[in-house]
Amino acid sequence: MSAFNPLVEKLSPPPVPSVAAWGRAYDGSKGPLIDLSQAVPGYPAHPDMLRLLGETASSKAFTGYGPIEGETELRTAYADHFSGVYGAAIEAKNIQITSGCNQAFVCAAMAVAGPGSTVLMTEPFYFNHETTLAMMGVKTAFVPCAAENGFLPDLVGIEAAITGDVKALALVSPNNPTGAIYPPSLLEAIFKLCREKGIWLILDETYRDFLPNAGQLPHGLFALAGWEETLISLYSFSKSFCIPGHRLGAITAGEAVITQIAKIMDNLQICAPRSAQGAVAKALPLLADWREENRQEIGRRADALKAVMRGLNDWKLDAIGAYFAFVRHPFGNKGSAEVAEQLAKQAGITCIPGVYFGDSQQHYLRFAFANADVATIALLEERLKNFSLS
Amino acid sequence: MSAFNPLVEKLSPPPVPSVAAWGRAYDGSKGPLIDLSQAVPGYPAHPDMLRLLGETASSKAFTGYGPIEGETELRTAYADHFSGVYGAAIEAKNIQITSGCNQAFVCAAMAVAGPGSTVLMTEPFYFNHETTLAMMGVKTAFVPCAAENGFLPDLVGIEAAITGDVKALALVSPNNPTGAIYPPSLLEAIFKLCREKGIWLILDETYRDFLPNAGQLPHGLFALAGWEETLISLYSFSKSFCIPGHRLGAITAGEAVITQIAKIMDNLQICAPRSAQGAVAKALPLLADWREENRQEIGRRADALKAVMRGLNDWKLDAIGAYFAFVRHPFGNKGSAEVAEQLAKQAGITCIPGVYFGDSQQHYLRFAFANADVATIALLEERLKNFSLS
Repeated sequence: MSAFNPLVEKLSPPPVPSVAAWGRAYDGSKGPLIDLSQAVPGYPAHPDMLRLLGETASSKAFTGYGPIEGETELRTAYADHFSGVYGAAIEAKNIQITSGCNQAFVCAAMAVAGPGSTVLMTEPFYFNHETTLAMMGVKTAFVPCAAENGFLPDLVGIEAAITGDVKALALVSPNNPTGAIYPPSLLEAIFKLCREKGIWLILDETYRDFLPNAGQLPHGLFALAGWEETLISLYSFSKSFCIPGHRLGAITAGEAVITQIAKIMDNLQICAPRSAQGAVAKALPLLADWREENRQEIGRRADALKAVMRGLNDWKLDAIGAYFAFVRHPFGNKGSAEVAEQLAKQAGITCIPGVYFGDSQQHYLRFAFANADVATIALLEERLKNFSLS
Repeated sequence: MSAFNPLVEKLSPPPVPSVAAWGRAYDGSKGPLIDLSQAVPGYPAHPDMLRLLGETASSKAFTGYGPIEGETELRTAYADHFSGVYGAAIEAKNIQITSGCNQAFVCAAMAVAGPGSTVLMTEPFYFNHETTLAMMGVKTAFVPCAAENGFLPDLVGIEAAITGDVKALALVSPNNPTGAIYPPSLLEAIFKLCREKGIWLILDETYRDFLPNAGQLPHGLFALAGWEETLISLYSFSKSFCIPGHRLGAITAGEAVITQIAKIMDNLQICAPRSAQGAVAKALPLLADWREENRQEIGRRADALKAVMRGLNDWKLDAIGAYFAFVRHPFGNKGSAEVAEQLAKQAGITCIPGVYFGDSQQHYLRFAFANADVATIALLEERLKNFSLS
């Protein structure tokens, strides 16, 4: 057989399907499977969202090619929404619509870093960010984030890691996998450090709609003069609107960045799927109250998980935030993949092993607790208590 | 401002929007604009296609994440369809669904060629193939295709161009931009050469549904034993079903290739948009007759363009095929971009300048004649006859 690209060949298979396979091997003896693996809201999309999706998809208006940067209607609606969330003046020209937030990351990373250059990340990291850079031939370097520091990076560590070949620092806040919410003051200090060093700050904010407090400002970076020269922010419509299958995300950046990214998007897939863009443009203002109710619901789920974990002696809730908890398992010398596999097969709980987020995360499991309702989360206590490695 | 990736920064802006801007500058004095630029069928999607798209998009069943490789229903339906078209035994496991055919090319190219290696193409080339490789840091080399040879490459030229760093040969048949249909015997000889040299043959067959003869076998490569070790075929649902805005394409390859490509797709966007996959799975068998009628209609459009060109003395129809014509303009020493810009602004005809398909194509314009109906194509004669460069 002809040869494959070694950068792709050496990537591990995608993690989520492997974990799902463990779940399928569960015999149901402890009750229904509790899926805390891939981040998917455990409630359905709003009926109005489905109605709008049906209307736009069946319309001739969205069958043709659309603008590379996205539908004007969605770019405008999202810029308005975004301006409200951040207390900033963002316009449609600052928005690139993508087919989900993984693609937003591909576009942002490729716009600023080519093969052989380096992107700095925090560890634990979101695995698709790491594998995306690896397949592009971009080098990665990591700033470790310690549990005792709430899995936040420290500024000294970041500064030390910004060597001459680093083109960007990629962060995720609220964090995937730990759930850690980066304080605005930390983000501002990091932003200023990046600006001073002349590197980009790529900030994945997929989970920002699930911050603990109503109307909480994620950070003030978009109100800083000249943010366009340093900051690229990424977002996903998948979680808030419960429509990951429709693949919609967005990038907020300076116009000069959008110009570069549009060239990448044209090559990747010309434009994001159009009919869902038309539907989400209308849903953004329409479903604001519903999204707020869901934010509160996910807060109750976080509280339910905290209560469960207080009832367990050996399992430690080392971090919990907007969507995820990073849980320290009690099987010290066992690998996280072995623990997660047995947890799925014996106890009917699927979650992602810590090692998928970095080699030094073997003690951890990521629980996407937002996937499960309060009653389901309560079931975790007994299942975890009775669980032992065979 | 922090720096951009030079590989992206040096790419030209996407060509289609630039050409569309010339069209918007047309004053309408010669009648309605005739758009022969981006390849978009000039008839609407079938009402049943729109109905199916509406049904699946409004269904909860497609809101969650789906399989990375694509919906099983579509992979199966497409494999069945594909097996019929090629007289071969293709299964669902040989299919990766993508978000359009540009993305199929990104996946195929990345699976086999990393930064610094080379992909061989024919010239004139499809511009997104060239810019995709450039932004990935993959080198390109070109086999020239002469007008006097029907814009087909010759085997000697290909063999000479397969140097040690070449990982794949990328072809488009029926060709974009020339329309040239590669004869099955030529494709078989090229396939065997690639196999002998140990390089991949990436064959973009976006336009294969518009071959001149009913039931015409595009080629016999999928019936050759061991095709999986050399061949990767790309396809788009955009043209046949008139739904480019829904962004759906497909890759047909060996299982080992699909395994590599799934890792890339997971990073690029997890999975193609799902609801359109569900709709197209049903439309594939349902709209077979309608697609056949459209194939015949596009044949009539080709005949209409040939008749127009016979009436013009200085314009030469150097190639015409499944979807495109490659037309030699009569302004010898003028650049194709200048000709196309003036043709749009003065005569209300938008088309793509030859230079976008290679520096040596300045004498040419690409007409996507399939976009326009027979009556509209007939209008070209007078507009071209009366056109002169200012």
